[in-house]
Amino acid sequence: MESEAGEAVSRRFDDVIRLALERGFFMPASEIYGDAPAGFWDYGPLGVALRRKFIELWRRELVKRDGMLEIDGAQILSKSVFKASGHLESFVDPIARCSRCKAIYRVDKLIEEKTGIHVPERLDLGEMRRIVKERGIRCPSCGAKLADFAHFNMMFRVGVGAAGSDAYLRPETCQNIFVDFMRIYKTMRGKLPLAIAQFGKSFRNEISPRQGLLRMREFYQAEIEVFFNPNRANEFPKAEAVMDYALRLQPVGEDKPLEVSCREALDRGLVSSKLIAYYLALIQQFYEKAGIPRNRIRLRELDPDEKAFYAVEAWDLEVETSLGWIELVACNNRGDHDLGGHQKASGHEMEVLDGSERVLPHVFELSMGVDRSIYCILESSLATSNGKTVLKLPPYLAPIDVAVLPLISKEPLTSKAREIYDALKLEFDAVYDESGSIGRRYVRYDEVGVPVCVTVDHQSLEDDSVTVRFRDTAHQLRIDLDEVAGFIRGYLAYP
Amino acid sequence: MESEAGEAVSRRFDDVIRLALERGFFMPASEIYGDAPAGFWDYGPLGVALRRKFIELWRRELVKRDGMLEIDGAQILSKSVFKASGHLESFVDPIARCSRCKAIYRVDKLIEEKTGIHVPERLDLGEMRRIVKERGIRCPSCGAKLADFAHFNMMFRVGVGAAGSDAYLRPETCQNIFVDFMRIYKTMRGKLPLAIAQFGKSFRNEISPRQGLLRMREFYQAEIEVFFNPNRANEFPKAEAVMDYALRLQPVGEDKPLEVSCREALDRGLVSSKLIAYYLALIQQFYEKAGIPRNRIRLRELDPDEKAFYAVEAWDLEVETSLGWIELVACNNRGDHDLGGHQKASGHEMEVLDGSERVLPHVFELSMGVDRSIYCILESSLATSNGKTVLKLPPYLAPIDVAVLPLISKEPLTSKAREIYDALKLEFDAVYDESGSIGRRYVRYDEVGVPVCVTVDHQSLEDDSVTVRFRDTAHQLRIDLDEVAGFIRGYLAYP
Repeated sequence: MESEAGEAVSRRFDDVIRLALERGFFMPASEIYGDAPAGFWDYGPLGVALRRKFIELWRRELVKRDGMLEIDGAQILSKSVFKASGHLESFVDPIARCSRCKAIYRVDKLIEEKTGIHVPERLDLGEMRRIVKERGIRCPSCGAKLADFAHFNMMFRVGVGAAGSDAYLRPETCQNIFVDFMRIYKTMRGKLPLAIAQFGKSFRNEISPRQGLLRMREFYQAEIEVFFNPNRANEFPKAEAVMDYALRLQPVGEDKPLEVSCREALDRGLVSSKLIAYYLALIQQFYEKAGIPRNRIRLRELDPDEKAFYAVEAWDLEVETSLGWIELVACNNRGDHDLGGHQKASGHEMEVLDGSERVLPHVFELSMGVDRSIYCILESSLATSNGKTVLKLPPYLAPIDVAVLPLISKEPLTSKAREIYDALKLEFDAVYDESGSIGRRYVRYDEVGVPVCVTVDHQSLEDDSVTVRFRDTAHQLRIDLDEVAGFIRGYLAYP
Repeated sequence: MESEAGEAVSRRFDDVIRLALERGFFMPASEIYGDAPAGFWDYGPLGVALRRKFIELWRRELVKRDGMLEIDGAQILSKSVFKASGHLESFVDPIARCSRCKAIYRVDKLIEEKTGIHVPERLDLGEMRRIVKERGIRCPSCGAKLADFAHFNMMFRVGVGAAGSDAYLRPETCQNIFVDFMRIYKTMRGKLPLAIAQFGKSFRNEISPRQGLLRMREFYQAEIEVFFNPNRANEFPKAEAVMDYALRLQPVGEDKPLEVSCREALDRGLVSSKLIAYYLALIQQFYEKAGIPRNRIRLRELDPDEKAFYAVEAWDLEVETSLGWIELVACNNRGDHDLGGHQKASGHEMEVLDGSERVLPHVFELSMGVDRSIYCILESSLATSNGKTVLKLPPYLAPIDVAVLPLISKEPLTSKAREIYDALKLEFDAVYDESGSIGRRYVRYDEVGVPVCVTVDHQSLEDDSVTVRFRDTAHQLRIDLDEVAGFIRGYLAYP
């Protein structure tokens, strides 16, 4: 199968999309209408629950473990914010328009596709026009000449108030964190280093959104901004706890990841400070706990020409899928670009005292794409057993914790099973289901990753025992009814 | 104090806003910039946690208790969606512009303010122009004549793709639910009645946003749409469980709420069906559990001229505050307006089988304003004790579950307290604080509603016991260290 943009798409990708559409994980937004714009998706009931649990894990393993602060800001911010951040000027894609059919293309991507030439992030338009001419690249759809080379700003503008004043949907969640930094620092009695996190929507007007959750125009980010004193990035006692943990680093120049402990990475100068080594360890550990096998995770150092314009040091956490390595988290040392920019543009002080030193904090960022993380977790969990699909999610990420099933759809089994469901439903994500044979119901819940089913049979009526049936092994266990809640609680526990 | 729009604002309102700004509940978005548009707010760390717990309670008491499905859809939807829903044509406010200073006003509100005349929802512009002329209403700011009477559409338009095709930020979350209804119904094996819920952002370009979280341009809604067969709204066995529960109903014609059981409300014909009585009971119970005193809650039936254009039967859940009664949840019987409109416009079938009957489902909606609910909960919890502020939130809504405090900032007390904090921080929303006298720290945490503090003193070093100190009574209790987690868990339990 070929997607709109012409990339090969894998069979596993198709399997995930099929499961998502058929079982209520996600679906295209506005899908009943012909004018539904590409790149917008709705999460269905199972997708909502999976994403909620993914974010609970993120909150546990990063925000709470590290003692970060979490905020949740407006998505529409003023024009000044993006003037100061550089987005108004620099958050652009190079485009060209077909002189005949008027189709619009990302010209850098088109050059890469047609010639294999790697186009660096900040190549100028004249240079691209030259390559297009020299290589005879023409409109892929009608063959006519390309024209109107331009920079296209990817922010969505909104007009606020009756006068329609300029404001923008944020293209990254972190701008709220930078703009609010000083108020949060003061009201929360902050001290450097201080990490502030945010989960929420961002918006980018992509020229060609594609591949389901992988490149969306409206998407979820979970971003963490660590504010620190650049002179003290190695005075970081918390790092001791991860010194022996092995990072899977792929520095510039290497063609595959090295397994190196944080200590070794620091000794060899692969990572510039203890603070950065610590957060790289935290984010890699997080994905391991989210069920991605270690050997499919890498932290790849970016080439100078791949880095964002503000980045001093940049690592992408990538996960290997059937579509290749996919970037899930951009880990950037943004230096003082952000606070410096807002300090200058707003006239509001952004310097703070660190001990007796007055400092404009630098920022190390962990910017996570949530939807694509969900895609990777689904793909990585999708297994086949005896020709049937089994979604082997870690139990604490499963959208449904437990399905309660009467063996057959007959009284008094159904009433008994409903009673059990009612007793579980407030604490757990539980479902009750009596339709179809018990075997078909097991298949139905295996396919969406339900870790355990609780089955009520005739013996249950006699001795108040039920069968617990495990997704991954199909193994069954008989336990007393009054042990069920405790059993599920234990089985869903975080590692 | 007078707000922009000229309403009297209470001292309690000011107290909430001051607490919010000083302690990190919420703050204006883009606030360091002069062009920050009004009506956009950022939640700070304590606000995020309070809202998260409020939504967890909503999910527990409504979504899970009732077995609803929850989705989370894109905020940007296609133009066709809002053509079919009626928003492109009807989601408008009447405005007029000053002929001299060009200030723009909601003309219906201006008439109400200046004359006390109640302007019905759908009064036409000509009529308003006539009243303005007759009563000699002029620009409140410069005194010149008002002109340019017009309907102003409150949706924010966004241009998608390089061509900038029309799409809109949703003005209510429910449109995703209607558009996706059939896919969800099928993939989730639905049966009528079927309730689908959604929590997320909506956007309205208000002419004059005001009063903090009470009228925002970007705001959170938690909406529930119950799809049902209008011929069977009284065949609803779940309603039996609430038949004796007393609703606080204020039907049209009454000037204060009546306490009537669901049974009586049905017998007297105050509520049209068991299904509606049941959901009104659920939403009232929810606010009682959220800490709003019963006698400050009412379900007010709307006059015909207050109802939205699609509503067949409409109740507003309102809460009494220092600013008067505030609408928190619109409970509307929307009839077949929504599915009928989308069926007609899209050509996609929206009818389903209910037993052997083919039916276009009707919709009963519980549309909750989340931010204003948060405001009401804060105002209602704000108490004063011995001249100090104490925020008496229900423990399960408190943004911080527990503060761990060494009696004084000295080793080994601090290390011991940090150990306890580390043991609690993954399961609870915990903070550690050693700065200032213990009395000042208690005041600091009482003010933001922390239900219990755990204090480590010299005796703790000897016998592994700690003091638990209660926010509402200042009472102290000595317990063993290994009982602390269990104790907090129990204290935070839902009712």
